[in-house]
Amino acid sequence: MVKGGVTAAKGFMAAGIYAGIKKKRKDMALVYTKKAARGAGVFTQNIVKAAPVNWGIKVTKDSDLVHAVVINSGIANAATGQEGEDNNRIMAETVATELEIPVSSVYTASTGVIGQELPIDKIIEGIKELKDNLASDIKSGLMAADAIRTTDTFTKECAVSFMIGDKEVVIGGMSKGSGMIHPNMATLLGVITTDVSISKELLQEALSEDVKRTFNMISIDRDTSTNDSVFLLANGAAENVEITSKNEDYYNFCKALNIVTRKLSRLIASGGEGASKLIEATVEGATNEEVAIKISKSIISSNLVKTAMFGNDANWGRILCAMGYSGGGFNPDMVDLYMESEFGKLQIAEKGLARDYSEEEATKILSASEVKITIDLNEGEGKATAWGCDLSYDYVKINADYRS
Amino acid sequence: MVKGGVTAAKGFMAAGIYAGIKKKRKDMALVYTKKAARGAGVFTQNIVKAAPVNWGIKVTKDSDLVHAVVINSGIANAATGQEGEDNNRIMAETVATELEIPVSSVYTASTGVIGQELPIDKIIEGIKELKDNLASDIKSGLMAADAIRTTDTFTKECAVSFMIGDKEVVIGGMSKGSGMIHPNMATLLGVITTDVSISKELLQEALSEDVKRTFNMISIDRDTSTNDSVFLLANGAAENVEITSKNEDYYNFCKALNIVTRKLSRLIASGGEGASKLIEATVEGATNEEVAIKISKSIISSNLVKTAMFGNDANWGRILCAMGYSGGGFNPDMVDLYMESEFGKLQIAEKGLARDYSEEEATKILSASEVKITIDLNEGEGKATAWGCDLSYDYVKINADYRS
Repeated sequence: MVKGGVTAAKGFMAAGIYAGIKKKRKDMALVYTKKAARGAGVFTQNIVKAAPVNWGIKVTKDSDLVHAVVINSGIANAATGQEGEDNNRIMAETVATELEIPVSSVYTASTGVIGQELPIDKIIEGIKELKDNLASDIKSGLMAADAIRTTDTFTKECAVSFMIGDKEVVIGGMSKGSGMIHPNMATLLGVITTDVSISKELLQEALSEDVKRTFNMISIDRDTSTNDSVFLLANGAAENVEITSKNEDYYNFCKALNIVTRKLSRLIASGGEGASKLIEATVEGATNEEVAIKISKSIISSNLVKTAMFGNDANWGRILCAMGYSGGGFNPDMVDLYMESEFGKLQIAEKGLARDYSEEEATKILSASEVKITIDLNEGEGKATAWGCDLSYDYVKINADYRS
Repeated sequence: MVKGGVTAAKGFMAAGIYAGIKKKRKDMALVYTKKAARGAGVFTQNIVKAAPVNWGIKVTKDSDLVHAVVINSGIANAATGQEGEDNNRIMAETVATELEIPVSSVYTASTGVIGQELPIDKIIEGIKELKDNLASDIKSGLMAADAIRTTDTFTKECAVSFMIGDKEVVIGGMSKGSGMIHPNMATLLGVITTDVSISKELLQEALSEDVKRTFNMISIDRDTSTNDSVFLLANGAAENVEITSKNEDYYNFCKALNIVTRKLSRLIASGGEGASKLIEATVEGATNEEVAIKISKSIISSNLVKTAMFGNDANWGRILCAMGYSGGGFNPDMVDLYMESEFGKLQIAEKGLARDYSEEEATKILSASEVKITIDLNEGEGKATAWGCDLSYDYVKINADYRS
């Protein structure tokens, strides 16, 4: 792990500013690489897609090189019709003009309220200010990560470095989360930058495979957003021999990428709206990975599991119930269930039945800020981990009040 | 509509008592018909099934005649292994012995905490007391409906009468709900009694078809229980000519049944844990009914829609988002959206875009105890209605504290 986020890799600059879309907080971010990058993207599977998502899908498909990602928070530019598509294009064109790059090399993203039009004049002025603020230092990356927040309570970024041959390669990223988080193929706004040299096809494959086990394995509220987008930009500034086949370098890159995406995913889950704790559910011993994925994701998505966790209640029956309706097959009479945190580890159930554990000790374990639930199905080798958070009064407060 | 619930139909008796399973409130109910009844049942699709569910599936399949349904609340008898199966059998056998009926004619049901064994001695004593309290008056039906409650804030029962030939036929029922409610083929505990004379096959078909549009169309928290069971008993005491084919009488029976199940479903939804209001979502103009079912159920299941409703916020973007990930196909640019209550009706969106409506007026409409959301997809003839409730602080409180 190294310091920073989207500006950690060589050749990347960023900025985050207040453009007046939100009432007070920063609301626009720009990530830029002068050296053209390969771009990869994954986007929401919601059939209601925001204008920037439609644009991003097109850029990912058609553009060989990408230079920039521009993002606004406050308004999602979803359910905005032709005016929304036009505003999104103006947003990309303004970045292209200001930075003297092709419009097809600009990714766009928006997050916030659905069903309102962007204040395009403020966006245009904001882009000009963003350009003036672009810098490659760590603080500029942090400003960008700050500007993409909506109800997020903290910024989410991280970076790693590793070697390919004699070249140091860096991967850094930022993301936002908090609400409407139940990603299906991506998560609401992640930008990952790297100076690795790699072909476009392999970059996309690395990202698409990775999100299945990282961003797609988190849930805050089981609501798959209209705006989910993760962008991965690789500008080759590390000057390693270009990765064009699935060699050792490729797999090393995938491993490093996974460290970044896994960290960002955990940060999104622990920063879920109103969350007081991160819940990590690992399912082992499943007949295959797909089954483990379904079951682990069902556990961390259950409102009843989430409220029990908020109440520090080792209500394992609710966990078993959520496993049972997950769609993943297993034998209930073979289930071993453990709960673990910095305060200890307990086996709660064995072969599908309650063990004679101490409720007091269980409550203490669950009072930690990170809680691990481990399930062994004792049937095979399939394994998966999913991340979520508890469901608290504050989740209700935030979402009953949001927009007003 | 007529007064009463499970004792409204001729020949049915009921009782509800306190047997000491819960701390204070009534916790055991019995419904009994001396004249043997055809029995039909639908049960949870959760692969973790409570002992009484396994028993009920067997009774439904193997028994030609049913006499009784015995129910306890407080403990679910789920995830209880062989001891749970044995306890369930003892529960059925005790009823059979006390009432001098075959054990195969006794349905059982349990609801409450998962993963604890039943206090079988209390159950046995409770059944004896239930037998002594059996009566056919309306109050006894109400006592039974009261005894099957867990976190329910009110009892849920209703009844209708209609004519077949010159015979008056009655259908009455009771149900419980509140939490872990996202039925898949049934709902957590419903008992419907009728004096109609009908073949077992048609009775089951009438119930199975009906629940698709009633009990299966409600959700409190998207958690499909391990114990969902709906029983339908028809004892023929109305002495109509037995319904053995899908004639006019059959369809009249189905219509009357639907009035009861629809009413019970709405009562379950409006009595959802912590709920301050009933949300009814109707989707019209879908390409087919299946699409309308998926979309309407997705709307009332969304945490973000539910919290917005709690906050009286006409946040229609969240509704559109939930429609988009429902799995039902539609064109977002064709969506018309209305909100309605006793305080008025407003068109919020037209052809997928926000209309220039008054937020103040929308908030007033949403402040009612029953709110209707109507969507017209403008694509076909498919239509469906789903029922849910808002997500409040009290839902979190109830479920963070429950069990302790």
